[in-house]
Amino acid sequence: MFDRYREHLEAALADAVPALQWHPVNILLRYHLGWSDHDGVPSPTPASQGKALRPTLCMFACDALRGEPAHAAPAAAALELIHNFSLVHDDIQDQGLERRHQPTVWALWGTPRALVAGDAMQSLGDLAILHCDGAVASDTAVRVSQLLTQSYVEMIEGQCRDLQFEQRETIGTDEYLDMIALKTGALIRSSLVIGATVATHEADTIDGVARFGRAIGRLFQIRDDYLGIWGDEAITGKSTDSDIVQRKKSYPIVYAFQQADGANRNELLRLYSQETLDEGNVDRVLDILDDIGAAAQTDYLTEITAQEARAALSTLELPPWAADDAGQLIDFMAYRLF
Amino acid sequence: MFDRYREHLEAALADAVPALQWHPVNILLRYHLGWSDHDGVPSPTPASQGKALRPTLCMFACDALRGEPAHAAPAAAALELIHNFSLVHDDIQDQGLERRHQPTVWALWGTPRALVAGDAMQSLGDLAILHCDGAVASDTAVRVSQLLTQSYVEMIEGQCRDLQFEQRETIGTDEYLDMIALKTGALIRSSLVIGATVATHEADTIDGVARFGRAIGRLFQIRDDYLGIWGDEAITGKSTDSDIVQRKKSYPIVYAFQQADGANRNELLRLYSQETLDEGNVDRVLDILDDIGAAAQTDYLTEITAQEARAALSTLELPPWAADDAGQLIDFMAYRLF
Repeated sequence: MFDRYREHLEAALADAVPALQWHPVNILLRYHLGWSDHDGVPSPTPASQGKALRPTLCMFACDALRGEPAHAAPAAAALELIHNFSLVHDDIQDQGLERRHQPTVWALWGTPRALVAGDAMQSLGDLAILHCDGAVASDTAVRVSQLLTQSYVEMIEGQCRDLQFEQRETIGTDEYLDMIALKTGALIRSSLVIGATVATHEADTIDGVARFGRAIGRLFQIRDDYLGIWGDEAITGKSTDSDIVQRKKSYPIVYAFQQADGANRNELLRLYSQETLDEGNVDRVLDILDDIGAAAQTDYLTEITAQEARAALSTLELPPWAADDAGQLIDFMAYRLF
Repeated sequence: MFDRYREHLEAALADAVPALQWHPVNILLRYHLGWSDHDGVPSPTPASQGKALRPTLCMFACDALRGEPAHAAPAAAALELIHNFSLVHDDIQDQGLERRHQPTVWALWGTPRALVAGDAMQSLGDLAILHCDGAVASDTAVRVSQLLTQSYVEMIEGQCRDLQFEQRETIGTDEYLDMIALKTGALIRSSLVIGATVATHEADTIDGVARFGRAIGRLFQIRDDYLGIWGDEAITGKSTDSDIVQRKKSYPIVYAFQQADGANRNELLRLYSQETLDEGNVDRVLDILDDIGAAAQTDYLTEITAQEARAALSTLELPPWAADDAGQLIDFMAYRLF
């Protein structure tokens, strides 16, 4: 599934990105997208970096509902650009030094240029989705543009809540789940809904796709949170304990803060009030997570979310190949190791 | 003219901005737009800050071409939000501490929050213009969204070129004029073109409006550059010599670098290679500008651009009231004191 639509996506992205002919920021975009190195020398396998999850979901939804995936390609390119715009700005916000095994854009070129590169990426995404209007009716083009924009407004709302959380001692698991539904869930859900909207106007079908998409979005983030603590470094490419070292309040940590009492709670509060965590601290956090059963709880949440996804899927009348693919997608999202 | 459409604009902005219900960034937006103080307490005269130039141009163009200005109001709100998004991000880039007599957003809330506030403002702009689709046909809604997006892609290209210029010793006047045509000109031009597009589909008329808009955009920036050096501080609200103190390469300075030779040139190069300019340095720069006739050249450029604007205007068949207003607009842009 992740290779099936690659050609459509690459063509649509190539259409979208050369809209920037001026040099300096063009290199920043190509570098961030994995198309070139930081001198602008093309990478051997263009667009090979990243899973291109969102565009794939978009074209899959269109295809599964008997639409023409190529018609959803401009929207798919837009989703990839909007997602990457958010990463470039996120890295500035978090002062993150590395992304996909290479230095981040701001770390190489400084904040002002990275800021503009992110803005440019968003603008190109906005332009790309408006190119839909060649392939679909104008009212559909307006609709998918609205869906995309609405979802990145939600994404930005999620980023705001996340920034707020950083200044608070503790967060409830419900608040946390609401935040990730916005920050990462909205764009994933709308990837599927946009693809569906290109294929059909049937309201019940679109609703079912939206429910499926909501569950897929949550699965994605919860699994990400799991892997950020217990993932295998060699597979994920991240340092296994990096979410803990960075004192990231991901689901297992939020759950632990909520459940811990007595000595565990005091120790968590003490550890997370430090500027940095050393190796011994990380081991202590891992022990407390163990004590509280945070990994099992994360798995449980994954499982019930996967069930929600399956329930939503069962309401959709998909051709057998697509129902199979969608089922595999749920499993991949829930049980992936990277 | 600047008051005529205020109610339409305020209603459309009020529609566009409450889409952000979450608190922290909402306050940042309202503060930047002049609607509230930095604690969120509403200002006595909402939306009173800034000239609202772009939305006014948009609704005026629609009105002048016998369209319904209210139909252009969502687009006008979008233009104001996109313009303000660029200011919030510009202030981060330039590390500017003050804007419209008050501290900038990043100066009060830090870069991460200001970054997100800017992104939110852009997204709300994108959403607002898509709301056009209630008032105009879907293909027009797509068209005006494309025009807006294309123009902020140009705006961002202009910002990139401007960032590049900062690293160069000298810039040609032609390069400079190309840069400002993108950085500030594009959004001003497209304000008029978008308003016109809501009113009519006639290609010749839209072309004429675009030519008029291009000249208005240049007039605006050239006059801004003039006032940034020779403006009256009490009226503009800026420190008279602030463009020189900030070593901003505005038109008069670019012209001086291009024309100066011998001692003047060496002195300019020396002065502009310093980190900061003291009062004596500023006086030396003013002397050199005087020597070279930079003020007269700036006035000359303003005059020929005003003539271009009048020529474009004469090709449009406007009702007398609108032709009068457009003529006054040219004069205001060319000779304004603030």
